[in-house]
Amino acid sequence: MMRPPARWLTCLAGAALAAPALAWAAGDAAHHAGLLLWIGAILIAARVGSLVQRFGQPAVLGELAAGIVLGNLALVGWTGAAVVATDPVLVFLAELGVVVLLFQIGLESNVQQMLAVGARAMAVAVVGVVVPFVLGTLVVGPWLLPGLGANAYLFIGATLTATSVGITGRVFRDLGQLQRPEARIVLGAAVIDDVLGLVILAVVSAIATTGSVATGAVAIIVFEALLFLVGAIVIGRTVAPPLSRLFARIHAGAGMKLALALSTCMLFAWVAAQIGLAPIVGAFAAGLVLDDVVFSDYDPPSFERDVRAALAGADRDTHGRVEAVLDIHRNRHLEDLVAPVGHFLVPFFFVVTGMQVKLDLLADPRALMVALALTVAAVAGKIVAGVVAGPVDRWLVGWGMVPRGEVGLIFAATGMALGVVSAAVFAVIVITVLATTLITPPVLARLLRRR
Amino acid sequence: MMRPPARWLTCLAGAALAAPALAWAAGDAAHHAGLLLWIGAILIAARVGSLVQRFGQPAVLGELAAGIVLGNLALVGWTGAAVVATDPVLVFLAELGVVVLLFQIGLESNVQQMLAVGARAMAVAVVGVVVPFVLGTLVVGPWLLPGLGANAYLFIGATLTATSVGITGRVFRDLGQLQRPEARIVLGAAVIDDVLGLVILAVVSAIATTGSVATGAVAIIVFEALLFLVGAIVIGRTVAPPLSRLFARIHAGAGMKLALALSTCMLFAWVAAQIGLAPIVGAFAAGLVLDDVVFSDYDPPSFERDVRAALAGADRDTHGRVEAVLDIHRNRHLEDLVAPVGHFLVPFFFVVTGMQVKLDLLADPRALMVALALTVAAVAGKIVAGVVAGPVDRWLVGWGMVPRGEVGLIFAATGMALGVVSAAVFAVIVITVLATTLITPPVLARLLRRR
Repeated sequence: MMRPPARWLTCLAGAALAAPALAWAAGDAAHHAGLLLWIGAILIAARVGSLVQRFGQPAVLGELAAGIVLGNLALVGWTGAAVVATDPVLVFLAELGVVVLLFQIGLESNVQQMLAVGARAMAVAVVGVVVPFVLGTLVVGPWLLPGLGANAYLFIGATLTATSVGITGRVFRDLGQLQRPEARIVLGAAVIDDVLGLVILAVVSAIATTGSVATGAVAIIVFEALLFLVGAIVIGRTVAPPLSRLFARIHAGAGMKLALALSTCMLFAWVAAQIGLAPIVGAFAAGLVLDDVVFSDYDPPSFERDVRAALAGADRDTHGRVEAVLDIHRNRHLEDLVAPVGHFLVPFFFVVTGMQVKLDLLADPRALMVALALTVAAVAGKIVAGVVAGPVDRWLVGWGMVPRGEVGLIFAATGMALGVVSAAVFAVIVITVLATTLITPPVLARLLRRR
Repeated sequence: MMRPPARWLTCLAGAALAAPALAWAAGDAAHHAGLLLWIGAILIAARVGSLVQRFGQPAVLGELAAGIVLGNLALVGWTGAAVVATDPVLVFLAELGVVVLLFQIGLESNVQQMLAVGARAMAVAVVGVVVPFVLGTLVVGPWLLPGLGANAYLFIGATLTATSVGITGRVFRDLGQLQRPEARIVLGAAVIDDVLGLVILAVVSAIATTGSVATGAVAIIVFEALLFLVGAIVIGRTVAPPLSRLFARIHAGAGMKLALALSTCMLFAWVAAQIGLAPIVGAFAAGLVLDDVVFSDYDPPSFERDVRAALAGADRDTHGRVEAVLDIHRNRHLEDLVAPVGHFLVPFFFVVTGMQVKLDLLADPRALMVALALTVAAVAGKIVAGVVAGPVDRWLVGWGMVPRGEVGLIFAATGMALGVVSAAVFAVIVITVLATTLITPPVLARLLRRR
C-alpha cells in the first residue's frame, strides 16, 4: 500500500511556485521558435532589400522597403506578419539596433570634430526647431485642419520640430560620407534638437494641461540635458585617453573588449533615457567617448595561426614586414569589433520600422492630402535650417534634418495621451513622419552623387 | 469662431487605432531603457565571472556564478533583479544565445566527424537514457519519495534521461577541446538523446493520461526526428559544397554572409522546434551543414587600407608575401564572422540561467537531501553510459552527458501540466537539474587538465 507523500513535500510547494525556475525552458517554446524564424526572415529581407545598392540607392531604403512589403502582406491575404510588427521582443531588437547604429556612428566621429561644427550645428538646430514649429502651429495646422483647439496646433507644431538621426546617419554611413562636415553638422544638430525637443514637449504639455509653464521645471530639464552633453564632452576629452590605454592593456581577448564597449554604450543610453533624452543620443555620446580606444589584441581564432604557417621558411626581412602587418591586424579599432554585432542588429530597426508602415492608412485620400501638405511644411522648415549651416552643402544639411522618426511620434503620442491630439490627427502625423523618413534616403543619395 | 473638425477626421480614427504605428517609439520607453542597462550589466557580469579562467576554470562556470549572484541579490535586500530573470526579452536573448552557441559549435565540427563517432554516440545515448530512467523510475524515485503514484516516478525517471549539451559544449569550447573524439561523442549522443527524449516524453505522457501508448503517434515522432537528422546529414554532404562555392562568389560584404549564415541557423532551429526537437539541435545541424563555407571577402573596414599604406615602397617579394597574408585574411571561416555575435549573445544564456537559480530553494534541508540523492543517481546513470564510449576517456564522455538543463525541466513541467508531478517534486527536480549543471564545468575542467 502506498504511503501518503511526506509533509515536507507539501510545504515545499510554495517555494517551487515562488521560483520561476528556468522560465525560458518550460514556457514560450512555440513563441520563441516563431521569433527565431522571424529573425532569420528579417535578416534575409534586409539583405534582399539592400540590393537597391546596385541602383545607387542607400541600403537603408531597401531595408525600409523590405519591411513595408513584409508588414503589408495582409493586403494580399497573409496576416502572419501583423503580429510580428508589434511583438515586444522584435520591437526591442529594433530599438537595440538603432542604439548600436548610433554607437557605431559615434565611434566613427569624435568630440573634437563635433565641437568644431558646434556653433553651426546649434544654429541649424535652433532654426530647424523654430521654423517648423511656427509653420505647424500658426500656418499649416489651422489651415489644413480647421476647427481643432489651439493646443492641438501646438502639438502638431511640436511634432514637426523633431529630428530623428537614425535614417540620415545610416545614409551617410552607407555611402561612406560620415566624415563630411555636413554629416557632423546634422549629427550635432540632431543631438541639440533632442534637448530642445525635451523643452518643447515639457512646455506644450504644461500649456495643454495647466495653461501655464513652470519655468523651474523647464530649467531642470535643460540643466540635466546640458549636464549630460557637457559631461560626455568632458569625459571624452579627459577620461577617454587613459581609458583607451587601459583597454589596450587588457589582454582578455576580443570578447572582454566588446563587452566593455557595448556595456558603456548601454550605460550611456540608459542615462540619456533617465534624463528624458533619446537612448540613441546616449549611445552616440558613448561612441564619441570611446572613439580613440584601440585594441592591441583583436584576435580572430584562426588568422595568426594560418599566417605563421604560411611564413614557414621566409627570410628575415619578409618576416619583419609580415609582423608589421600582423601588428596592424592586432591593433584594431573598436568599430571593427562592433561591426558584426551591427550587421546582426541594425537591420532590425529599419525592417521593423518599415513593417509598421500600414499602407491601408493611405486609403483615405483626404488624410493623405493633408499629410502630404504637412510633409511639405516639415521638409521646408528643415531646409530653411540648412541655410544657416555656413559654407557647406546647405541642401545636404537641410535634407539631412528632414526625417522625423520616432521622436515626432512620441510628441504626437504624448498629445494623444493628454487628450489634445485626436486619433485622426495622430494618423495624419504618422503618415507625415513616415513620408519624411522614406523620402530622405533617395534625396540624400542624389545630393551626394551630384557633388 | 472655430469650426468643428471635418467629418473625415472622425472617420479616420478607426484606421489610426488599427495601425499600431511605430509602437516601439511611443510605448515602453522606460522598460526599454531598463533593458539596455541590464544588457550592459549582464555583459559585464559575464566578463567579471569569466575571470575564473585565471584559476583554471572554464569561463562558463564564472558566468553561471555571476548570474547566481545577480539573481539572488534579493537575499541582501535588493529585489531589482528579480523581475529581470523572467523578462520576456532577456529570456529570449538567452535562448538566442544558446542557439548561436550551438551554431558555433556546429561550425567547428562537421558531418563526417560526427558520423565517424556515430555508433559510439548512439551506444552512449541509449545507455545514458535507459540507466537513468530505470534508476529514477524503479529505484531512486520510490525510495526517496515514497507515496507518490507510479506516473510520478515515470516522470522523475524521464527527467533524468535528458542531456543538455549547451554547458558541456561550452566547456569543451572554452578549453579549446572541441576537436577531441570525446567532445564529438557527447555532441552526437546529446542530439540522439534529444530524439529519444521526444519518444520518452510522448510515451510517459500517454501512459499518464490514457494509460496506454499509441504506437502510431510514437512512430511519427521518431520518423520526423530521423527525417530531420538524416536530412541534415544529406544536405551537409550534397548541398553544402556548392552552397560554399556560392557563398564564396557573393561579393556583397560580410554583412550579407553573416545574414545568410544566421538565417540558415534560425531556419534550422525553427524546423527542429516544429518537429518537437530542441531549437539548439537545429542550430547545431545548421552549423554542421555550413561547416565548409569559407568567405573570400571577409573585410573589416580598416585593415586592408592600413596594410596597403604600410606596404608603400616595399620590394616585390615582400609585396607577394604580404598579399598571401591578406589572402588568408580574406578567406576567413564563417566562425570568425559569427564570433562577435556569439561574444554578445552567448553570455546571456549562462548569466540568465544562473539568475534563475533561487538559493532560497536550498533552505529546506530535506528537499536538498532528496535532490542531492537524485543528483547522485543522475550522475551515476550518465557515467555508466560513458563506459560504452569505446577507446576514449570514458570519464570525460560520462561527465559530459551529466548536465540536464532545460530539457529535463521541460519533462518535469510537462508532468506538472498533466497533474502527475506536484510543485514540490518539481522543486526537487529543479535543484537536481541545477546541481548537474553547476557540478559539470569544474569536473570536466579537472578531467581535461589531468590528461
